[in-house]
Amino acid sequence: MTAPTVGAAPAETVDDLVARRVAGQSLEAPFYTSPEVYQRDLDVIFARNWIFVAAAAEVPEPGDYVTIDVGAYSVIVVRDDDEEVRAFHNVCRHRGSRLLQERQGAVGNIVCPYHRWTYGVDGKLMFAESQPPTFDKSCFSLRSVHVRNLSGLVFVCLAQEAPDDFDAVAEVVAPHLAPYELDRAKVAVSYDLQEAGNWKLVMENNRECYHCDGHPELTTAYFPLFAYEPEDITPRLKPLYDRYVKAAGALAEVRAAHGLPLTDHRELDTRVVGYQLSHLPLDGEGKSFAPDGAAVCTKLLGSVQDAAFGDLSLHMQPNSWFHLLSDHAVVFSVLPTSTGTSVLRTTWLVHPDAVEGVDYTLDALTAVWRATNDQDRALVAGTQAGCANPGYLPGPYSMVEDDVEAFVNWYVTRLREASA
Amino acid sequence: MTAPTVGAAPAETVDDLVARRVAGQSLEAPFYTSPEVYQRDLDVIFARNWIFVAAAAEVPEPGDYVTIDVGAYSVIVVRDDDEEVRAFHNVCRHRGSRLLQERQGAVGNIVCPYHRWTYGVDGKLMFAESQPPTFDKSCFSLRSVHVRNLSGLVFVCLAQEAPDDFDAVAEVVAPHLAPYELDRAKVAVSYDLQEAGNWKLVMENNRECYHCDGHPELTTAYFPLFAYEPEDITPRLKPLYDRYVKAAGALAEVRAAHGLPLTDHRELDTRVVGYQLSHLPLDGEGKSFAPDGAAVCTKLLGSVQDAAFGDLSLHMQPNSWFHLLSDHAVVFSVLPTSTGTSVLRTTWLVHPDAVEGVDYTLDALTAVWRATNDQDRALVAGTQAGCANPGYLPGPYSMVEDDVEAFVNWYVTRLREASA
Amino acid sequence: MTAPTVGAAPAETVDDLVARRVAGQSLEAPFYTSPEVYQRDLDVIFARNWIFVAAAAEVPEPGDYVTIDVGAYSVIVVRDDDEEVRAFHNVCRHRGSRLLQERQGAVGNIVCPYHRWTYGVDGKLMFAESQPPTFDKSCFSLRSVHVRNLSGLVFVCLAQEAPDDFDAVAEVVAPHLAPYELDRAKVAVSYDLQEAGNWKLVMENNRECYHCDGHPELTTAYFPLFAYEPEDITPRLKPLYDRYVKAAGALAEVRAAHGLPLTDHRELDTRVVGYQLSHLPLDGEGKSFAPDGAAVCTKLLGSVQDAAFGDLSLHMQPNSWFHLLSDHAVVFSVLPTSTGTSVLRTTWLVHPDAVEGVDYTLDALTAVWRATNDQDRALVAGTQAGCANPGYLPGPYSMVEDDVEAFVNWYVTRLREASA
Repeated sequence: MTAPTVGAAPAETVDDLVARRVAGQSLEAPFYTSPEVYQRDLDVIFARNWIFVAAAAEVPEPGDYVTIDVGAYSVIVVRDDDEEVRAFHNVCRHRGSRLLQERQGAVGNIVCPYHRWTYGVDGKLMFAESQPPTFDKSCFSLRSVHVRNLSGLVFVCLAQEAPDDFDAVAEVVAPHLAPYELDRAKVAVSYDLQEAGNWKLVMENNRECYHCDGHPELTTAYFPLFAYEPEDITPRLKPLYDRYVKAAGALAEVRAAHGLPLTDHRELDTRVVGYQLSHLPLDGEGKSFAPDGAAVCTKLLGSVQDAAFGDLSLHMQPNSWFHLLSDHAVVFSVLPTSTGTSVLRTTWLVHPDAVEGVDYTLDALTAVWRATNDQDRALVAGTQAGCANPGYLPGPYSMVEDDVEAFVNWYVTRLREASA
Repeated sequence: MTAPTVGAAPAETVDDLVARRVAGQSLEAPFYTSPEVYQRDLDVIFARNWIFVAAAAEVPEPGDYVTIDVGAYSVIVVRDDDEEVRAFHNVCRHRGSRLLQERQGAVGNIVCPYHRWTYGVDGKLMFAESQPPTFDKSCFSLRSVHVRNLSGLVFVCLAQEAPDDFDAVAEVVAPHLAPYELDRAKVAVSYDLQEAGNWKLVMENNRECYHCDGHPELTTAYFPLFAYEPEDITPRLKPLYDRYVKAAGALAEVRAAHGLPLTDHRELDTRVVGYQLSHLPLDGEGKSFAPDGAAVCTKLLGSVQDAAFGDLSLHMQPNSWFHLLSDHAVVFSVLPTSTGTSVLRTTWLVHPDAVEGVDYTLDALTAVWRATNDQDRALVAGTQAGCANPGYLPGPYSMVEDDVEAFVNWYVTRLREASA
Repeated sequence: MTAPTVGAAPAETVDDLVARRVAGQSLEAPFYTSPEVYQRDLDVIFARNWIFVAAAAEVPEPGDYVTIDVGAYSVIVVRDDDEEVRAFHNVCRHRGSRLLQERQGAVGNIVCPYHRWTYGVDGKLMFAESQPPTFDKSCFSLRSVHVRNLSGLVFVCLAQEAPDDFDAVAEVVAPHLAPYELDRAKVAVSYDLQEAGNWKLVMENNRECYHCDGHPELTTAYFPLFAYEPEDITPRLKPLYDRYVKAAGALAEVRAAHGLPLTDHRELDTRVVGYQLSHLPLDGEGKSFAPDGAAVCTKLLGSVQDAAFGDLSLHMQPNSWFHLLSDHAVVFSVLPTSTGTSVLRTTWLVHPDAVEGVDYTLDALTAVWRATNDQDRALVAGTQAGCANPGYLPGPYSMVEDDVEAFVNWYVTRLREASA
C-alpha cells in the first residue's frame, strides 16, 4: 500500500564537479544549489578548518558564554574560571539535549535542562543522578572543540586534528592586531543578517569591490581605487588619486612613528589557513567612518594614539573578515544554515570604557556596514536566484576579482585534498 | 564526528513508473508527489516543449518586459527596438546574477544589478568594466530562448532545438484567432493564484467538466452539456438543450456571415504541439460572462462585429488554455514551482481603447474566472493531499474525462520519447 | 542546459544503523534526523502496527467521524449505522481526492467534493455519475482499515494483515478499563500540540520520569518515587514515602472491595502489541488532579463509586498512553508529521452527563497535562536540536530509564523483523 519511492537517476558526484572546475571563471551552479555540495562543505570546510566564531570580548568574564550554530553544529564558547576561552559541543553526553539554548548568557555551571546533568565550565561532568555504581563521570565530559584566541578573535576547529599552520599565521598577524587590544574591548552591538544565498556567495561578494558602485557609504570612507594601476588614473580620478597618495603616505608615517609594521600579507590560497592583511588609508579626515572621515567613537582602541590610523583589513578563509580602525573594530563571520541560506554575523567593538550616548552612538558607529551589508544581501540573493536558473553558465572573472578567485582556489583545494 | 548519512534503498525509477502506466485510469501517486518526477517534468516537458508564458499585450512597447519563472528557470520576454518579441534567460553571463528582478517593467538596456554588465534588449553585451584586452564581448550575449508570437500569444521553448510542428499548428489556429487581434489588445488585469498541487493536477482539473457542478458561475455562462449525446437529454434537460441547439445555430450563422471558420480541431495527444480548438455557444444573451449572458465590456475586440460571437476555446499542451469572447479574452498559464505547488497565471485582455470604469469594470470582467479559479484551487489541493496518501490507488476515468486522458497520454508520450 | 544533478556518496543504510544499535544507550542521531529512517518508521511501525488514533467517544452517533493524519496517511474513523466504529482510507477511489477535509464532523454519506462519488458510512460506493455500463460499483468501495474498539479506545492498523496478538492484550486490559465505561464517555476537550521533535523523542520523553523535576504540577499529583527502593528513602523523603505507602494501601482496599484487579502488567518489549498497565495511588486527597488531590469533575466515570480510585496508567507501543482516574480520563496519541516534527493529540473524557461549568471547568480539568505537555515540548525540541548536532554521541541510560529502553527495544525489534 505504501506509495513507491522513486529514485533519482545516477548522477555526477561532488568529486566530478570539483575535478572539472575551470580556473578563471565562476563555479558551476551545483556548488551553490546542491544539498550534496552543501553537506560536503560542512564536512570538509566547516568541520575541518579554523572558523572565526566570536570576539573574545563577547565573553569577558568567567562563565560568560555564546553559542554559535555552524550548519547543524552548535558550539559553546565560554570563558572558564582561569579566564581562558574554551569551546565545547553544545550537546549533553546523556541523551543529546542541547545544553545552552540562548545566543549568549552567563552560567556558573552548564546544566542540562532535560535531566540536570551538570558540567563545569571546563567541560567536566560534575553531577548525574540515578547512575549505577559503575558509572564513571570522567568518561562523560563535554566534547571539547579546538579553540584559539588570536588577539581577541576566537577561532574554533571542529576536527579531531586541527590544521597546524594556524600558529604560524597568528605569528604574522598578531603584531598587527596588538595595538587594538581587542581582547579587552567591549561589544557595542552585534546582529545577524539572514542571507538568501549559499555561504560561498556571501564570501565571494566580500572578496571584490568590482560591485562597489552600489556601496556609496563604503566608497565614501575608502578610496575606491582597488586594483588600479597608476596608468588607469584618468583626469577625472586625479583629485581622488592625489588624496589617496597623500593619505597613504601619512599612514606610513604614523605607523613608522610608533614602530608598527605596515607590510601587507597575502596568502589567500597558498596555505591551509589562508589570509590577507592590508593597511588601507581612509578618505576625508582619514580617521573613521563618519561621512567626513571623522571618528565615530571618542575613545581610541587599546594603545592606539593617533586617530588617523587607517584601516587594518584582515581576510581569513573560509568565513571571516575584519576591519580595525583607531576608534572601533568590526568583525564579520559567515555561518551556513542551509544550501541556499546563511547568516552574516557582524559585531562592533569599542574601547572598554567607551559609553554609548557619550562616546559613541550606535547609529553613527554602525551606519556604514549596516548599509553595506544590506546592499550586499540583495546582490547575494539575486546571484543565488540566478545560479539556480538552469540557464546559468559560469562566466569569466574580471581583472579586479582576483581575491574571489583566490577564495575559490582555496575552497577547491580543500575539497580536493579531502577526497585524495 | 559527522553524523552518518543514511541512504535510501534502491527504488524504482521514473522510467519504471512511466513504463507501467495503465491507460484509462489516473496516474500513480509519485507522478504528483515525487521530486524525481517533478525534475523529469521540468527537464522533459517544460524545458523541451513550447510553453505559453505571456500575452504579447503585456509588452506593448520596445523595452517593455515581463519575467516568467518556470520551475527554477527565469525567462525574460521583452519587446525589442524592432518591436519584435524576444526571450532570454534571465541570468548574467558574468557571475550569474538574476538580471531583472521585477515581474514586469520597462528598460532601455538590461543592466545587471551586480557589476553593471549591460546588455541591449536584443541580448547583445554592450559594456563590461575591467576586462582584459582579450575579452570578446560578442561571446557573452544573453542566452536566447526560442519564442513565437502566435496572434498575440507568446510561447517560448527552452530547448536547444524546439519541436518543429509549432508552425503547422499555428497555421490551423491563427485564422481562428485573427479576428480578435490580441497582439493589439490591452491587459485589463493579471493575477497569480498559488495552487497547492502539482502542475498536472491543475491541468487535469481544467481538462474536464465532470466536476462543474461546483462551478455555478461557469455553468451559468456555458451550456453544461459536455459530452452529452441527444439520447442523454431527459425531459428536465430539454429546455436547456433547446436553448443550446438554438444558440449553436445562431453562432454558426454569425460566423458564416463573416466568412469565418467554425470547424473544431482536436489533436490533444496526436502530435507534439498538442491542442484543441472549439467554438462554444453561450447561454442567455449569448454574448459574454455577465450573469444574463450580456457583455462585460462595451468595446469589442479587434474586428469582431457581433457581440454574440460565442467562445473560442483553445487548449494547448502542456500548460495553457484560452477563452476568446467578443468583448474580452482570458488567457491562462500553469507554471510549476515545486513538486506539490504551482502558479496559475490568469490575464484578461480587452480592446486597446477600452477604459476601466467606462467600458468595463474589473469586477464584472473577472467575476466568472476568479470564482472558478478559486473553486478549482480547493479541488486541486484536495486531490494533491489525497494522492499523497499511501492509501490512494489509481481509479477509472469516467466517460466525460477523455480530455484528461488525452493530456496524460500526451504527457506520458513525451516522457517515453525522451527516455527512448 | 539543465543544471547537473549531484548525487550523494553511497551511504550506510537504515539496516546498517539498526544492526549496530547498542543496548543500554540512546539511539544514534539518524534515528531522529534521517528522512530515510522516518520513511522506514512510517512503513514498518505506523503502517503495520496497531496505532491508537481516537477515543470512541469522539464519534458517539452514526455518521460522526474524525479524520486522523498519520504521516502522509489520512484515515477516517466513523460510526456506522449499526453503531460500529469503522475505519477507511480518506481518499476517493476515482482520482484520489481527499474525501473528508475536516478534523471531525457528521455525515449521512461520504461524498467526494470533486466529482460527487458517494459512499455509505459502511464504505460502499453508492453513486458515481457518467460511468460506462461495464462499471462495477462493488469494485470501488472505500479501502477499509483494520480497527479495534478496546473499551472505548480506537486503534487502527493500516497493514493488509494486522498483528494477531491485539486481542490477547485486550483480554488482559479490558477488565481494568471496564469500570470507566469510556465508550459512553463524553469528550470534554481535545487539542493538538505541535512538537518540534521526531515522534520517538516524544515517546521516549513520556516513558521516564527522570526529568520530572521539571513537572511541578505532575509531581504534586503523583508520588515522585519512581523506581525507588525502600533503601533509597532518606529522612527527607520519609514523610512522602509514608503517605505513599498509606495511599497505596487504601487503593488496594478500594479495589478489593469492588472485586477489581490491582495487578500490574508490563510487556513493553516482549510482544508485538507492547503495553504496560499500572495502578498508581495519588497524593493529597488521592482523588484527582486538583492541586490538593481533590476531584476536578463532580460526576465519576462509568461504574466507579469511590473517588479515591487511583490512576490506571496504560502505555501502549508505539504511540499512546492513557491516564484513567475516577472523575476523568486523559488519552494521548503521538502522530508523526515529518522527520523532525510530530503532533501530540490529548483528549479529556468525562461522564456523559457531566456539564461544563457545572460539574467541571476546562481549566481545572486540563491544568496538569496542559502544563506538563508544554514543559515536555520544550525538552523534546531541545533534544531534537541536540541530536541533529554532529557533536552528539549516544549516551548511557540511567537506572530509571528502563521504559525508555523498552520502547527502543520494541522499536528496533520491529525494524529487524521487517528487514528479516
